[in-house]
Amino acid sequence: MRLYQMQDSGNCYKPRLLAHLLGINLELIDVDILKGESRTADFLAKNPNGRTPTLELDDGRYLAESNAILFYLAEGTQFWPDDRLARAQVLQWMFFEQYSHEPYIAVARFWKVIAPECPPAMTARFPEWHQKGNAALSVMETHLTGRHYFVDEHYTIADIALYAYTHKATDGGFDLTKYPNIRHWLAKLETHPQHIKMETRV
Amino acid sequence: MRLYQMQDSGNCYKPRLLAHLLGINLELIDVDILKGESRTADFLAKNPNGRTPTLELDDGRYLAESNAILFYLAEGTQFWPDDRLARAQVLQWMFFEQYSHEPYIAVARFWKVIAPECPPAMTARFPEWHQKGNAALSVMETHLTGRHYFVDEHYTIADIALYAYTHKATDGGFDLTKYPNIRHWLAKLETHPQHIKMETRV
Repeated sequence: MRLYQMQDSGNCYKPRLLAHLLGINLELIDVDILKGESRTADFLAKNPNGRTPTLELDDGRYLAESNAILFYLAEGTQFWPDDRLARAQVLQWMFFEQYSHEPYIAVARFWKVIAPECPPAMTARFPEWHQKGNAALSVMETHLTGRHYFVDEHYTIADIALYAYTHKATDGGFDLTKYPNIRHWLAKLETHPQHIKMETRV
Repeated sequence: MRLYQMQDSGNCYKPRLLAHLLGINLELIDVDILKGESRTADFLAKNPNGRTPTLELDDGRYLAESNAILFYLAEGTQFWPDDRLARAQVLQWMFFEQYSHEPYIAVARFWKVIAPECPPAMTARFPEWHQKGNAALSVMETHLTGRHYFVDEHYTIADIALYAYTHKATDGGFDLTKYPNIRHWLAKLETHPQHIKMETRV
């Protein structure tokens, strides 16, 4: 399988991390969104929404949305629960990630450390991003009280989806020292023998 | 099962519609977010993220996130595919809905027809919401060329997730006459003999 991706995107790191945990080989194809490479006719033919990551299956079909790719790779493995409610809870946290977490924590990071410059209209939004991003981190901090993982005390794709941008939240100006449960959970995931960093090129 | 909900929220309409299609009875408990009822200690004990809809199972456990609730109700029914890639594609469109569609199309509707007044800071965002919301509608319009449903020519929870706010997009100032494939798809879903309108109180 091929992954169309940007190395320093948390959304693209999610499937790289899960694939490494599962021993699945992904061929990485870099797409530089800053150079408009996700908006070419060639790329839009693969993903009409023009976003990375996009997975190309061995039969030439495509799948978009980082968390849908996680689901595709995880079904039938230990990262997707056997229990019906636990499966729905994994998706609950993955939708939480895309709606209440990523739009503030990832976007703040993008404008601080990825984009070459931050226009005033975006600079003006940092207080809102920090307020809403900290609200999401507080929900996670409370949930992680007495827990090692988000769902049913097993490492699932809910943890991977939330790990991707949470562990880089300081890049966007968030202070993780206020969230001891989150820091313990991040450290716990990093003890997995097949864990890889975002920077690792596999 | 009980659904904590607002009647005129598209996210809350999603599980009501699916439950009616499946013949499942939901007890509806109204939560008025405009009166702060989703931020009380009592409600935050049910859903720490303070959002509707929230589903209460018969055993007293809770599930949040509209699309995770759709998944929970749909698994094992005709609204959740048997094919592995089709399942991931259903989730792809549901994540698209929450990330690329709802934050513009639902939010524009909220400030135009739900909130009692729209502050200047929100009024200033309408051009961005209309640009990004129309981008999402264009992706849907292209995908629906020659298709009756979003995935594998079957009515799935991807259709329900996207129907909820698309069919009310004009409330937020979107012009659906530009999207004939979307209008045909909306009309197709409305021919289901168990279809109910958002206003219907079941």
